[in-house]
Amino acid sequence: MDYYIAVDIGGTQLRAALYPEGEQKAVSQKRIPTQTKDQSPVDRLLELIKNIMPSQGKVKAIGMAAPGPINPKTGILYAAPNIPGWVNLPLAQIVQDRFKVPTLLGNDANLAAMGEWKFGAGRGYQHLLYMTVSTGIGGGVIEEGKLLLGYKGLAAEIGHITVDPNGPLCGCGQRGHLEALASGTAIARYVSEQLASGVPSSMAELPAVTARDVSLAAEQGDPLAREALARAGRYLGRAIADFLHLFNPQIVIIGGGVSRSGRYFLDPLRNSIAEYVISPEYLHGLVVTTASLGDDAGLLGALALAQTVE
Amino acid sequence: MDYYIAVDIGGTQLRAALYPEGEQKAVSQKRIPTQTKDQSPVDRLLELIKNIMPSQGKVKAIGMAAPGPINPKTGILYAAPNIPGWVNLPLAQIVQDRFKVPTLLGNDANLAAMGEWKFGAGRGYQHLLYMTVSTGIGGGVIEEGKLLLGYKGLAAEIGHITVDPNGPLCGCGQRGHLEALASGTAIARYVSEQLASGVPSSMAELPAVTARDVSLAAEQGDPLAREALARAGRYLGRAIADFLHLFNPQIVIIGGGVSRSGRYFLDPLRNSIAEYVISPEYLHGLVVTTASLGDDAGLLGALALAQTVE
Repeated sequence: MDYYIAVDIGGTQLRAALYPEGEQKAVSQKRIPTQTKDQSPVDRLLELIKNIMPSQGKVKAIGMAAPGPINPKTGILYAAPNIPGWVNLPLAQIVQDRFKVPTLLGNDANLAAMGEWKFGAGRGYQHLLYMTVSTGIGGGVIEEGKLLLGYKGLAAEIGHITVDPNGPLCGCGQRGHLEALASGTAIARYVSEQLASGVPSSMAELPAVTARDVSLAAEQGDPLAREALARAGRYLGRAIADFLHLFNPQIVIIGGGVSRSGRYFLDPLRNSIAEYVISPEYLHGLVVTTASLGDDAGLLGALALAQTVE
Repeated sequence: MDYYIAVDIGGTQLRAALYPEGEQKAVSQKRIPTQTKDQSPVDRLLELIKNIMPSQGKVKAIGMAAPGPINPKTGILYAAPNIPGWVNLPLAQIVQDRFKVPTLLGNDANLAAMGEWKFGAGRGYQHLLYMTVSTGIGGGVIEEGKLLLGYKGLAAEIGHITVDPNGPLCGCGQRGHLEALASGTAIARYVSEQLASGVPSSMAELPAVTARDVSLAAEQGDPLAREALARAGRYLGRAIADFLHLFNPQIVIIGGGVSRSGRYFLDPLRNSIAEYVISPEYLHGLVVTTASLGDDAGLLGALALAQTVE
């Protein structure tokens, strides 16, 4: 039997899964911490892959999803934000040389788009915009049944467009990016600022507010929490309207932890898309929905990438 | 001998040209006004094409560029801003039925991108961003050697992204779009407002200021003209940085009348790109240049479109 191996690389944990050819259900899964005292993250990754290798049969390809800017054409990871020392690392080559199996590497948000497209909420569509809203904001675009990569594979960095030139600083150092105004981090920061300025809320008791706390408080009727989610939803909706003008997708899929915040987040988002779009042609037949693969989006995206090797 | 016909449809004039197969130099060109009292624009278009038809030989295809939103897959023009009555018009079908020749229709800015790519400043690149800055701002994106169209062909409307939510109204009805802040119209309006508020300038004598007046005054040292061009250049540069993050092109080509304003426009534009980009990876090897086809960009883009029929 032939197999594919998918690997999801994060700053906290490494996940790997083994899939028989033609299937999307893993016959084996493993996860280990990315960083330990006695081993480098590369050594841990190689060991994880070694341990997921099937005892019999051939592995046709290994697909790997990793955070940060990556050139999927060369398999080089330019910089992983949360893994010290991973700079200009030829990760696909390292794995391929070790296991003598064709190995492909892609950006995790790009691959989550591919996962949702092949196995999730985007099945059957040929023009798709996926965005993940969690600590940061990333995404991927499928155009005419193909992942939009750009020259070096650095396209679809949809969190890093300026939505308010006077807005707060983004993690990237620029001001007023979408990520700085509508990510989970931005939602939590907005609430913290409002609490500090004396706005009453059930969240005032919490030692530190997270986006998940805000979602829960919104469910329970907290006005500040609802306003914080609506504010992020409005920023995202206006940005999505701009993305409709740029990419003209058939379907917009919202993933990441914040996408599970329900109507206090999604209703303002949908309303803003409709308010800011320049022509109803962009909305006719457009589907706006949440992701369906949850935490497996990266892994299944890596599988979809591996399956491009036949 | 086999031929291609290219047509450039504008609100003021219709242009057509006849090209022998494999050539980009026309053997015949004609231009007529689009709108007259005694004939509909469609009738005028059909007559123009009839008149450019070769007396001998076969026409392999007709390519047409038109303003406004167009679905190039169906050949339907949704709305032409400056041609009354052209709404949901199946223009490609009308021409094809009349002449029994395969006919393709595309958005003029999209096709100008294709023209620059095939015959102009973008030759040899596979990832290209073209923007035309004139009365409005439009553009086109080549991704992996293919025009980015989106589901209905409405992608790459790059003038209609929000660059300042508190900015002036755009022609489309939305606020703070790139087109409302950096088009030729926006440059002229900014100068008019500054003149009205008493800012001294050599342009104060003019009955009505155009973007071309501003370019000329900037050449002659007028501080207000230089500031107006620099302001537009800065807005464009920041937007281009965002486009780098979204499309990751190898080359950015600036066309349209405003692109001929020289360094008072282009230097601030280039500086802003560098200032607002999130990673030097987007800039390594990036070419930022002006268009080389001038007023023929639309016509040559229509030729490139026609040539896709072999």
